[in-house]
Amino acid sequence: MRVERASRDAATPLYGGLEAGGTKLVCAVSSNPARGALAQVRFSTGDDPSALLAQVCEWFTEQERAWAPLAALGVASFGPLDLDPRSPTYGFITTTPKRGWAQCDLLGPLRRAFPRRPIGFDTDVNGAALGEGRFGAARGLEDFLYITVGTGIGGGGLARGALLHGLVHPEMGHIAMPRLDGDTFEGACPFHGRCWEGLCSGPAIARRVGASAETLAADHPEWERVTRYMGVALGTLTCVVSPRRIVLGGSVRRAGQLGEAEFFRRTRAALAGALGGYIDSPALRERGLDGFLVPPELGDDAGVFGALALAQDALAEAARSR
Amino acid sequence: MRVERASRDAATPLYGGLEAGGTKLVCAVSSNPARGALAQVRFSTGDDPSALLAQVCEWFTEQERAWAPLAALGVASFGPLDLDPRSPTYGFITTTPKRGWAQCDLLGPLRRAFPRRPIGFDTDVNGAALGEGRFGAARGLEDFLYITVGTGIGGGGLARGALLHGLVHPEMGHIAMPRLDGDTFEGACPFHGRCWEGLCSGPAIARRVGASAETLAADHPEWERVTRYMGVALGTLTCVVSPRRIVLGGSVRRAGQLGEAEFFRRTRAALAGALGGYIDSPALRERGLDGFLVPPELGDDAGVFGALALAQDALAEAARSR
Repeated sequence: MRVERASRDAATPLYGGLEAGGTKLVCAVSSNPARGALAQVRFSTGDDPSALLAQVCEWFTEQERAWAPLAALGVASFGPLDLDPRSPTYGFITTTPKRGWAQCDLLGPLRRAFPRRPIGFDTDVNGAALGEGRFGAARGLEDFLYITVGTGIGGGGLARGALLHGLVHPEMGHIAMPRLDGDTFEGACPFHGRCWEGLCSGPAIARRVGASAETLAADHPEWERVTRYMGVALGTLTCVVSPRRIVLGGSVRRAGQLGEAEFFRRTRAALAGALGGYIDSPALRERGLDGFLVPPELGDDAGVFGALALAQDALAEAARSR
Repeated sequence: MRVERASRDAATPLYGGLEAGGTKLVCAVSSNPARGALAQVRFSTGDDPSALLAQVCEWFTEQERAWAPLAALGVASFGPLDLDPRSPTYGFITTTPKRGWAQCDLLGPLRRAFPRRPIGFDTDVNGAALGEGRFGAARGLEDFLYITVGTGIGGGGLARGALLHGLVHPEMGHIAMPRLDGDTFEGACPFHGRCWEGLCSGPAIARRVGASAETLAADHPEWERVTRYMGVALGTLTCVVSPRRIVLGGSVRRAGQLGEAEFFRRTRAALAGALGGYIDSPALRERGLDGFLVPPELGDDAGVFGALALAQDALAEAARSR
């Protein structure tokens, strides 16, 4: 947890952030998220959202008593979500198979507990992207991607300073992939078989080799396949959106006995191979791919700090439209 | 050519647009590009850019005499381009193999001929995207892609209302592609072999079948392959940027004896197959892919009207920063 070094400045607004993940919910309050959080708490997600959201509201209310009234809230959540502010189910988790959470009104309890406070809302991965963009490994960049490769593969990011949205939201894990010579694995994605997620997510690796990725030896041939596929997929993302940097988070990058540094080294080499010298940029020539494909700086805190950034943006947006 | 229906309203600014393509340069002036152009002209690109740019400046000067002083100019050009305003070679075509055009200062002659006028500058495909977005098949959308499949494959578009840029600019034609069962073609891209452009561009089709795409019979098996690969590639773009619509231009969509309507029908079916039911959106359910994947409305005029839109934006930007 990144704790704020100084005590709260009474002149600055207090922000509340909520990251809702499939296994845990993390809440934090901060008046200066660039420095850290004043307080942070973690709940198990479980299967009873209304009880859990009541606890969340209670925790934020305690923080208000300890510090100051919340000026704004931000929520970054697992999905799929209804992100359309004109929709009657805006703020809901929609069709998730997660027990208890389908059609869950995530924002409703917060709205009732903290009326008249603006609430920012976005996907978990856009939240993590915003966290790394404002406080972490992509500080100062207007065009970058944040990719998480773990239980699934998701991506978010900024283009010209705005979070990527559109028709729904990006589903970068489900892009089509070429087959490496001799690879007969049919992939683990129930929708697309051997899409990127079907090849490189933690469960895909486990299904292919019959063991968890965390336990795989450094010389297991699976690491060669995974890093090559990672390079191909990241090359596709680079061609499509031309990011200035890709921040790669999630658990798979820790790469068992291979280790994170070697996983990044091989993935960068595979990415260079996939681009084939086609993308010519002074930034890539001078710094190589070491500065282009990087690990997150906030680690597990990216999501909740992204939620705090959503709160900052919601407050600024409310001030503009006043 | 889309000619303006009414004579010019003296109260509205006059815009000049220049589309620089590999075979032709198109210039237009308009005070209301949504209605059309007051005048439009076409030059052969040739291999003497300084003589040609002098002709271009002369044509715009004649238009100033006929109508009014130009308020702003927009240039959409083939590349690669230097699009970094802080670079000493901003406004140059850089490393093109096109004879006479490498390291050509495209904006310099226009700046000298029309001093103090703001000049917008972007890639040809971002220009066409902006043209279709403001005046054509993607009117009113803040998130869409424009893809051209012809001599090469290029893509541009808007995310949250801003043109996609980033490290360089998108190179959507060079994404990695899976192989259809039994397809042994090694592809035609000198950088990546069987990337999307290496499989579906006009020259790739011609190399594979030994005949120009325009002449291919409706029942030629190449159409089945090309439309399936198109669906896969468009599915990848849909997963990565989540556009609200894809406008598909370029010559390959006319599809020889197969025809444009059938090419779109098959490509939409292949795209639906590639998405595998994963992207769930009311817009796709209600309208199907007929409204999602569409041909351009401006046809060959998309580029020059995009250049006029760049001029509009440059004038608005100059007014804001004053």
